[in-house]
Amino acid sequence: MTKTVKQIASFIGGKIVGDDQIPIKGITNIEAPVRDFITFAQDEKGLKKLEKTDVACLIVPPNLVSQTKTVIQCEQPKLAWAKLLTEFHPPKKHTAGISPLASVAKTAKIGNNITIGPFVTIADDAEIQDGSVLISQIYIGEKVKIGKNTLLHPGVTIYEDCEIGHNVIIHAGTVIGADGFGYVPTPQGHIKVPQTGNVIIEDDVELGACVTIDCATVGSTRIGRGTKIDNLVQIAHNVIIGPHTVISAQTGISGSSKIGAFVTMGGKVGLGDHVEIGDATIIGAGAGFPSGKKVPGKQIVFGQPARPYDEARKQIAAQLRSAETLEEVRTLKKKVAELEKKLSGAVSH
Amino acid sequence: MTKTVKQIASFIGGKIVGDDQIPIKGITNIEAPVRDFITFAQDEKGLKKLEKTDVACLIVPPNLVSQTKTVIQCEQPKLAWAKLLTEFHPPKKHTAGISPLASVAKTAKIGNNITIGPFVTIADDAEIQDGSVLISQIYIGEKVKIGKNTLLHPGVTIYEDCEIGHNVIIHAGTVIGADGFGYVPTPQGHIKVPQTGNVIIEDDVELGACVTIDCATVGSTRIGRGTKIDNLVQIAHNVIIGPHTVISAQTGISGSSKIGAFVTMGGKVGLGDHVEIGDATIIGAGAGFPSGKKVPGKQIVFGQPARPYDEARKQIAAQLRSAETLEEVRTLKKKVAELEKKLSGAVSH
Amino acid sequence: MTKTVKQIASFIGGKIVGDDQIPIKGITNIEAPVRDFITFAQDEKGLKKLEKTDVACLIVPPNLVSQTKTVIQCEQPKLAWAKLLTEFHPPKKHTAGISPLASVAKTAKIGNNITIGPFVTIADDAEIQDGSVLISQIYIGEKVKIGKNTLLHPGVTIYEDCEIGHNVIIHAGTVIGADGFGYVPTPQGHIKVPQTGNVIIEDDVELGACVTIDCATVGSTRIGRGTKIDNLVQIAHNVIIGPHTVISAQTGISGSSKIGAFVTMGGKVGLGDHVEIGDATIIGAGAGFPSGKKVPGKQIVFGQPARPYDEARKQIAAQLRSAETLEEVRTLKKKVAELEKKLSGAVSH
Repeated sequence: MTKTVKQIASFIGGKIVGDDQIPIKGITNIEAPVRDFITFAQDEKGLKKLEKTDVACLIVPPNLVSQTKTVIQCEQPKLAWAKLLTEFHPPKKHTAGISPLASVAKTAKIGNNITIGPFVTIADDAEIQDGSVLISQIYIGEKVKIGKNTLLHPGVTIYEDCEIGHNVIIHAGTVIGADGFGYVPTPQGHIKVPQTGNVIIEDDVELGACVTIDCATVGSTRIGRGTKIDNLVQIAHNVIIGPHTVISAQTGISGSSKIGAFVTMGGKVGLGDHVEIGDATIIGAGAGFPSGKKVPGKQIVFGQPARPYDEARKQIAAQLRSAETLEEVRTLKKKVAELEKKLSGAVSH
Repeated sequence: MTKTVKQIASFIGGKIVGDDQIPIKGITNIEAPVRDFITFAQDEKGLKKLEKTDVACLIVPPNLVSQTKTVIQCEQPKLAWAKLLTEFHPPKKHTAGISPLASVAKTAKIGNNITIGPFVTIADDAEIQDGSVLISQIYIGEKVKIGKNTLLHPGVTIYEDCEIGHNVIIHAGTVIGADGFGYVPTPQGHIKVPQTGNVIIEDDVELGACVTIDCATVGSTRIGRGTKIDNLVQIAHNVIIGPHTVISAQTGISGSSKIGAFVTMGGKVGLGDHVEIGDATIIGAGAGFPSGKKVPGKQIVFGQPARPYDEARKQIAAQLRSAETLEEVRTLKKKVAELEKKLSGAVSH
Repeated sequence: MTKTVKQIASFIGGKIVGDDQIPIKGITNIEAPVRDFITFAQDEKGLKKLEKTDVACLIVPPNLVSQTKTVIQCEQPKLAWAKLLTEFHPPKKHTAGISPLASVAKTAKIGNNITIGPFVTIADDAEIQDGSVLISQIYIGEKVKIGKNTLLHPGVTIYEDCEIGHNVIIHAGTVIGADGFGYVPTPQGHIKVPQTGNVIIEDDVELGACVTIDCATVGSTRIGRGTKIDNLVQIAHNVIIGPHTVISAQTGISGSSKIGAFVTMGGKVGLGDHVEIGDATIIGAGAGFPSGKKVPGKQIVFGQPARPYDEARKQIAAQLRSAETLEEVRTLKKKVAELEKKLSGAVSH
């Protein structure tokens, strides 16, 4: 697929500074520049780096120009680039139809224009709405409801009674609705607390590979609209996650915690149970929160235990010189002892 | 399903204080109170919170009464509540039978009253005992032995030679018996050490979703009777875990470590190889243990590296004020220097 | 299978000190000594331990002899032992053939001597080369290429366009090529950045169970030749890992990071994006690296944030006595205040 700079500028609504007839043969990112391809720069520094490469054209913010490359100026270069990526690499079309190798219960409600691939199991009374795609080896439990235009990759398991919204993407190996981890300890062992609730995944959510989201003990574990969750994340029973939140890989959220809207979490974050995180909080990778911790929104927190940015930064900087501090304290102890000795002499003297 | 308070009290063996004819329409927990439902309170604080809600009746310890709600007093309120949850939400019955869409080796021994769902593979010489349920898309390797009344959720893989006990529950996506991670390093690369052992899962164990338990290099990796393991936990080759231990999500246990009985581990705990944890130890979330560490039982430990509760608590409290301590040391240095200067004057004087 | 010491010494190329006619009935490791079996000792300490057991013979380094056991001396005892393990426990042979219960696209290219088990899906234009084994419930996406003599365990998913080399082993539940975690944040929510690249797994790689390796946004995520990756490891988009590197369980590597050759990582290591790790670096378990960090090779690093061994060791030792240091600083403050008071008296005096 080749497009001219003019065609691309028209598609993304940008202003050309340079030659509008250059043929663009593909699209790439800053880390893999390719001859005759287009990419984007967010700032002067990125622009300078890319000017040294063979890329043909750059999407840049309105204020940037280049001495050597044709640029297309637009308000949000990365967003324009993402749209253009889809234009050059259109998402795969699935041929609708139900594989003769799938196992679909007679009582299941199957909408129109659905793709159900081989070795998919759909249990009794499940509902799959129009346009959804279930690629292969997927398990849909009893009474599960899946919305429109949702895409399930191979090996996904959805336990009974869970609800998945419209335009959701779930990557391979992810498990929705397994039992929450609840037991009553007794001297004879742990008695299982039945997990009777479900999981609700709202519209426009994307879940990575091998994510585990447990059903609620009673009620629902809920993932809010537009939230994006990375690979190998654990979400325990009765957790509530607000809309448009981003959770990076290997993070774990314990039971009954509540996460607000537009929160951003780095990788490997750990939350105890009943933690509450306010809207628009940014949580650094590896941060830890003890059970019951309440974090007001609109701030950056990190560390173990997590603290507001300024405090955590100072604490960690001080910890990095713990060995030197210890040495200094030892030296001070000697000096003070000597001073005490001298002064005792001086004073007595 | 509706039951009277009297019926419920009789079922759980409790004593009613209040109206024994109130109809109870369902059961819930403290976090999701519902009108006309029953729940439990462990103490005065929980009771006060629930008195403000529409729940109809509370299961409480023997000493508690309520001014506004009917209560049922009994020795272990949470245990009684868990039993009642099962009564209101009886576990799903599976229709026994082997799906025509399953692949069962002719040499496999299949007991009575077994459920084997679609796309399940059972390899040669495997044995599935009476009453077990294999829902869908499960792989049972050669010579695997599965006990009675065990429940395997979709997508579980059990490698050859592993043994699973009676009344075991394994959630979706869990992998039992993959090769342990063992290599001999050479300048030309890493030579694989064949992993020739198996995994033994004893009776009454429950394993969460996407758990990985590796086979032993030689001998068996073993999960003791009644032990409960949460999602995304990693258990390496030759690990031995005692009975009735509880391991929370995303914990990792390295090769040849030994965990005692009735141990409780928080989430994201990390153990090096050859660690030994004594019985009844409680390990805080995120704790780390270096290889070879031996931890006597019956204590609480946490931190990185993990230490007994009191030490760890003091250490972390001190670390939280590392920045202030550093500032104080700097101030002290100045003051001591000044004192030395003055004193040198004073003494020489 | 029984072999004489003589047969074994000949097989591993070692020198017998003792009785060469002892029959050896099996092979074990130091932790599970068995009567009449053979195992190995790396040093005097291991030898002494094993002399107290019923094992029949020990493989030892050239300089070691035993008073009580027959030994076979050779240059690399563990390597010889690993080879002998394979001799006593030869890897399972798979009967080549395509299961009638598999779903293989007509356009797929299938080599000779291939094993494709039940419920395996092979999509259009995929290629499986000679001698490879796909056990069961595996998904091979469109245009995926799998080399010779590669072994895929049950439940593996490989997304379209990915390339897997020769002699690769991939354990159950692992997901190769799911979308990288990339979004453009906007006030209305997060816009997905299409992930258009693939994953390349080079020859002789082994991947554990439930590993997730995301495809590149543009270009390839790459795992170098001979690299070994343990269970539940996360590798993000555009990561490049060199040859012969070893990555332990639950480690997570963020986008665009570059790992050198012969690197060794402990478990639960976390790398931010764009981190660079030099060749032959050894990284301790639980270490954390902030985004953009560059680590020169040939050193040992650990801690959070990770530092060179000597610095980290001193820092952590000092941190372990943070509470005592805090106490000493408080004492010093009092003493210095007293000294100041006295000296002010002394000097004025």
